[in-house]
Amino acid sequence: MDIKFSDRANGLKASAIRELLKLTEMPEVISFAGGLPAPELFPVEKVKEIFSEVMEKEGTSALQYGPTEGYRPLREIVAKQRMSTAQMDLTADDILITTGSQQGLEFSAKLFLNKGDVVICESPSYLGAINAFAAYEPKFIEVEMDDEGIIISELEKALKENPNAKMIYTIPDFQNPTGKTMPDDRRKRIAELAAEYKIPVIEDNPYGELIFEGTVHPAIKSYDKEGWVVFLGTFSKIFAPGMRLGWVCASPKILDKYIIIKQGADLQSSSLDQRIAAAFMQKYDLNDHILKIREVYGKRRNLMLECMDKYFPAEVKHTNPYGGLFAWVELRDDLDAAKIMEECIKENVAYVPGEPFFPTSGRKNFFRVNYSCMPDDKIIEGVKRIGKVLNKYYEK
Amino acid sequence: MDIKFSDRANGLKASAIRELLKLTEMPEVISFAGGLPAPELFPVEKVKEIFSEVMEKEGTSALQYGPTEGYRPLREIVAKQRMSTAQMDLTADDILITTGSQQGLEFSAKLFLNKGDVVICESPSYLGAINAFAAYEPKFIEVEMDDEGIIISELEKALKENPNAKMIYTIPDFQNPTGKTMPDDRRKRIAELAAEYKIPVIEDNPYGELIFEGTVHPAIKSYDKEGWVVFLGTFSKIFAPGMRLGWVCASPKILDKYIIIKQGADLQSSSLDQRIAAAFMQKYDLNDHILKIREVYGKRRNLMLECMDKYFPAEVKHTNPYGGLFAWVELRDDLDAAKIMEECIKENVAYVPGEPFFPTSGRKNFFRVNYSCMPDDKIIEGVKRIGKVLNKYYEK
Repeated sequence: MDIKFSDRANGLKASAIRELLKLTEMPEVISFAGGLPAPELFPVEKVKEIFSEVMEKEGTSALQYGPTEGYRPLREIVAKQRMSTAQMDLTADDILITTGSQQGLEFSAKLFLNKGDVVICESPSYLGAINAFAAYEPKFIEVEMDDEGIIISELEKALKENPNAKMIYTIPDFQNPTGKTMPDDRRKRIAELAAEYKIPVIEDNPYGELIFEGTVHPAIKSYDKEGWVVFLGTFSKIFAPGMRLGWVCASPKILDKYIIIKQGADLQSSSLDQRIAAAFMQKYDLNDHILKIREVYGKRRNLMLECMDKYFPAEVKHTNPYGGLFAWVELRDDLDAAKIMEECIKENVAYVPGEPFFPTSGRKNFFRVNYSCMPDDKIIEGVKRIGKVLNKYYEK
Repeated sequence: MDIKFSDRANGLKASAIRELLKLTEMPEVISFAGGLPAPELFPVEKVKEIFSEVMEKEGTSALQYGPTEGYRPLREIVAKQRMSTAQMDLTADDILITTGSQQGLEFSAKLFLNKGDVVICESPSYLGAINAFAAYEPKFIEVEMDDEGIIISELEKALKENPNAKMIYTIPDFQNPTGKTMPDDRRKRIAELAAEYKIPVIEDNPYGELIFEGTVHPAIKSYDKEGWVVFLGTFSKIFAPGMRLGWVCASPKILDKYIIIKQGADLQSSSLDQRIAAAFMQKYDLNDHILKIREVYGKRRNLMLECMDKYFPAEVKHTNPYGGLFAWVELRDDLDAAKIMEECIKENVAYVPGEPFFPTSGRKNFFRVNYSCMPDDKIIEGVKRIGKVLNKYYEK
């Protein structure tokens, strides 16, 4: 049976993360590989109670088709409650509800990329975005980061050298996979460069509100005067990922296109889930819930960094994220984190090897660890086990 | 601001149906334009009760990320309960849960179509599929139908004349927009032709179980020995569209690709909605619910056809669907249903003009009416009003 797939489909590979997650699902494995929120923090009882109220008041509408743009009260809540924390003053009309922010990533590629067009992204960048974009057969240009995220002079250089660049993709806050965060002046500069080079910026911001120290940074989009920046948000990390609710915030001319793409993609996101989320946030202050998440993740981050300092060889470097879910570990240049992972699996511990986060350079001596969904004793034991494996490679 | 969209995005248009639906949302308009299920039949109370049980038993999992393929118990239910009515004996492994069957359509184009490839479809065909496919810039070849659906000799001719055809798209049961249904021998023949010409068939089947007379037809896929047929199903018309749950059923090599596309598109469909649907169907027999829908829609179909016979000019033809949600009306060759619609809107009644259902031939003298979501008095009054407008065009 010789099936002719499209060229793009022939190039598609299963995401290394999701395949890995399958391997690490055995209960005996301590897995730092996933990116799951801590389930014990989900507001299960409140959602249960809200659901009864939703079904009581508007049960048939919650089970019926609704508008492609999304349930209007939820769009209003996103505009007024969530986007305001990132310093933006918006209305429901600026928001399209998506099936998670992953859908916003896929739509962005569909909207902006012809085959062979250039996407400029951080080096490394989010694997799920790289995979979603890859289906549209672009060329990736990686831009180097320092401790404060993408290096602006390197970004400018990439823009000059690639006049066919069609999209800048960036995660300014607690970046996946590095955990790095841009200071405000870089955000402002990126918005200026977008206007200068007339290139859309996809600002992917799933973690911005999960800041452990200080207040939420203004979004790149908050500096965007002409409308070149598309902001992708999500309730997955601040409420519940299982409901698959994210959003796109963009200027009208761009948002209209996203809406048409949404029509073709799945007509609309779940009426039921949208109503539950909206009713929840009308009744409760999500900020209180986010404060709880920050506190728990902040403690776990502290513990994980302490343990890495204690149990990893002194030469191993790691980032020091002050928010989000991930830290990024750098091994000696000659080491391959994927190979070392095989030994870790034998010790019943897992991380994500860094190579697939580099779309072109494929650097091998990095890995990503997640600290959001693991109790303290497992963080300690898991890091110990990785340390034991790493120490073999660093012995003199 | 000169934004460079992708070529495909430049060609995207808003769906005529959804734009129309907006116009017809005023409560004074009797709209036969939509394709909404009857909301009064939604099992609101049962869903409410089921939800409490789901949250009680597995609240955190219902709010957490889950597998891309879908929630396994729901995949099992689809295989065992739903696919069996269409004469197939399958397992959970043959099923991918999608965000409505619209997502299955979009994925199919992404999987099989390069720019310029040929899609063979019925003339007319489902607008939402045409729009989803169009984003991948194919060429459409329309194949004529008679009262029993696609004409097999015409399909063979199209296959012979288009060696670069990459996909046959068909809705065998109560087709959208015509309401026509294929007899079993045509289904068998299409499965044979797929193998002979080595071309995938996308069998879109949202309405097959809503049959008013006789039993559900075997799917084209039930005759598929080599695995060329992809079956798209949905809970939208037999349970609740607001939950956005559909499925793809395909042979392993093809289904694997759909799963990878799903990863990039939205990671997974709602964990919550999947669990509610599964728990509902574990506790209740969905067939009982479907029997109720059949009865109500069957009566409304009878009334609508009777009224059209009574109030429309004698020369106006319509199809006689024995299931599904739609009938199709043919006007005199020289008439334009879109222009006549403008007069209908003034009379506060609406249908969908047929032109956008013909991707290339754009025939103007047809329209689609929906009979599923309207009480009897509105069906009578609405058809009367359309009849009043039409009569002006048929007066001697």
